Amino acid sequence: MSEAREDRVLERIDAFRKRRPRLLDTVITLAHGAGGKSSAALTDAVFLEAFRNPELEQLGDAAVLALPSGERLAFSTDSYVVQPLRFPGGSIGNLAVHGTVNDLAVSGARPQWLSAAFVIEEGFEIGRLQQFVSDMRESAAAAGVQIVTGDTKVVGRGAADGLYISTAGVGLIPAGRRLSADLVRPGDRIIVSGTIGEHGMAVMLARGELAIEADIDSDTAPVNGLVEAMLAAAPDTRWMRDATRGGVGTVANELAQTAGVAVILDEATLPILPQVLGACDMLGIDPLYVANEGKFIAVVPPEQTDAALAALRAHRLGASAAVIGEILSDPQGIVALRTAFGGSRIVDMLVGDPLPRIC
Amino acid sequence: MSEAREDRVLERIDAFRKRRPRLLDTVITLAHGAGGKSSAALTDAVFLEAFRNPELEQLGDAAVLALPSGERLAFSTDSYVVQPLRFPGGSIGNLAVHGTVNDLAVSGARPQWLSAAFVIEEGFEIGRLQQFVSDMRESAAAAGVQIVTGDTKVVGRGAADGLYISTAGVGLIPAGRRLSADLVRPGDRIIVSGTIGEHGMAVMLARGELAIEADIDSDTAPVNGLVEAMLAAAPDTRWMRDATRGGVGTVANELAQTAGVAVILDEATLPILPQVLGACDMLGIDPLYVANEGKFIAVVPPEQTDAALAALRAHRLGASAAVIGEILSDPQGIVALRTAFGGSRIVDMLVGDPLPRIC
Repeated sequence: MSEAREDRVLERIDAFRKRRPRLLDTVITLAHGAGGKSSAALTDAVFLEAFRNPELEQLGDAAVLALPSGERLAFSTDSYVVQPLRFPGGSIGNLAVHGTVNDLAVSGARPQWLSAAFVIEEGFEIGRLQQFVSDMRESAAAAGVQIVTGDTKVVGRGAADGLYISTAGVGLIPAGRRLSADLVRPGDRIIVSGTIGEHGMAVMLARGELAIEADIDSDTAPVNGLVEAMLAAAPDTRWMRDATRGGVGTVANELAQTAGVAVILDEATLPILPQVLGACDMLGIDPLYVANEGKFIAVVPPEQTDAALAALRAHRLGASAAVIGEILSDPQGIVALRTAFGGSRIVDMLVGDPLPRIC
Repeated sequence: MSEAREDRVLERIDAFRKRRPRLLDTVITLAHGAGGKSSAALTDAVFLEAFRNPELEQLGDAAVLALPSGERLAFSTDSYVVQPLRFPGGSIGNLAVHGTVNDLAVSGARPQWLSAAFVIEEGFEIGRLQQFVSDMRESAAAAGVQIVTGDTKVVGRGAADGLYISTAGVGLIPAGRRLSADLVRPGDRIIVSGTIGEHGMAVMLARGELAIEADIDSDTAPVNGLVEAMLAAAPDTRWMRDATRGGVGTVANELAQTAGVAVILDEATLPILPQVLGACDMLGIDPLYVANEGKFIAVVPPEQTDAALAALRAHRLGASAAVIGEILSDPQGIVALRTAFGGSRIVDMLVGDPLPRIC
């Protein structure tokens, strides 16, 4: 990165941080793991503060690393602690592969290799473990990645809720590909790659604690193929992020803040399955904050929007892709939703954790 | 890798696997996480079986990955679940950095970048978290690596024993550097980089459940500098591995099996602190099976042994380095210990888990 560009990025990050919530808590709560305001405050105050370096400070889905040869790698990690371990549409094994593959893909990388570290509770059935490992194998094959290194730890009964899986991934970024919030301009369009809210609702309903029955499958899927198809059709795509914890609402806020723009979403255009909308209504949960595990948001220049959308819709995983909003210059750092009734409201980052342990 | 070489490696791995224990259990026990026989059986039956690929099948401390540019990377991961979280000489934070740095270093790589994923129990004090994160920062600085990406998950009260940390690491392997069990020859010497058994005993004693008091600090430290010093002095070093879970005894078995040689250790030459030997004696634990977190075993050709030893001893972390044995051609796959009394006994892989949750 040139020094001038690096300075600009650091200024932007500084401005971003000033807007970010401050850590006022003294103990960890579930909200610190929910991907919203509390998570951001904890990340800034504890992790960024200690580890400070230019790669980490980007706070992207993956770190971008330059090798001596000039090749660029993306490197990402996530721990998976979802409960229950299996839910309609997938399992912790699928999530552990898709989540990390998708973080690499939306960073512009082609995912290649994964590591997998297992923390298993004493007494866990090995046959059950094999099923989750089999899910990982299938997901890895579908995504075209290899699981090349791993680790197993066992903890006593009562710990680890059966199974936690941590994966890290390495991908290669093709020469010349550049995605950055820095490139986002007023007039750019915001695309979502498909219907939103299925994953979080599927997991919540699978717990059986809610008196709601609805036919909702998690959307967990690897989006790397979909991303490549879109980038081939819309090579000047500015920025992407997968809308996992915190949902589209939180990701849109991260975009508005890092790019220093206003993000305007149109409620009427948000693709949401009727059964997801129904369940959200009954629970009083805004689908904009519900996690997805196979959906991403992309910002594309207006002249490439049609091509991007056509490429997405031609792909099995992008059939419901839609333009859901646009970038304005003001008010900077703000996300607003134009409601179906013609009004508009501010969409803040997720506060609290209405749906804990969904990934 | 040339096809002929690849065939040889795969044959060797096949022979190795035939000697490895078979999985007979139906539920996970603490022994499956101890790094010994049960761990090997689980790895073969569940993880290798599902993920099978040439990189994973090496079962090294790290996977070696070839990039299009010809550069080679090492990629490794570990989860850390040690109890207690802080112990004499270190903490889970130090371990999480050193363990992954060391896995990369003994694979011949220069560690560069780490990821860190935290699973934190609801109610954990943020001030305490900051101390462990500060330990990570110090360890990363000492090892010359950067923590560039991460994740935070929160689980409910009673889960995760406070804090688990998973790290993954990426390192660059210098051109021309090659370390492999394939290169090990009869007559080669076995070197240990320092005194053994401190880490496991320090953690066990820190639990306060044993009626033993002894002044033992964990040896947790990054060995990448020490490895580089040794490789500069002994460039034809054949193979290295850090002696963590399962200890020197288990690592020696892995060497004997993958290289298809006999490993002969001399009891009288094993560097062990008197207080570690005393505690092991009282507990009936063989120090050969006690975990280390800053020690490695290297196989060096006889003509470079003096140079390797001198380079190690000149380094702060290698002052107690010693030649502890040699490679013979027969009996293949066997580790024998020549005892101080002139006899000899077979050293098997660790069976069971005398010291659970030490890393």
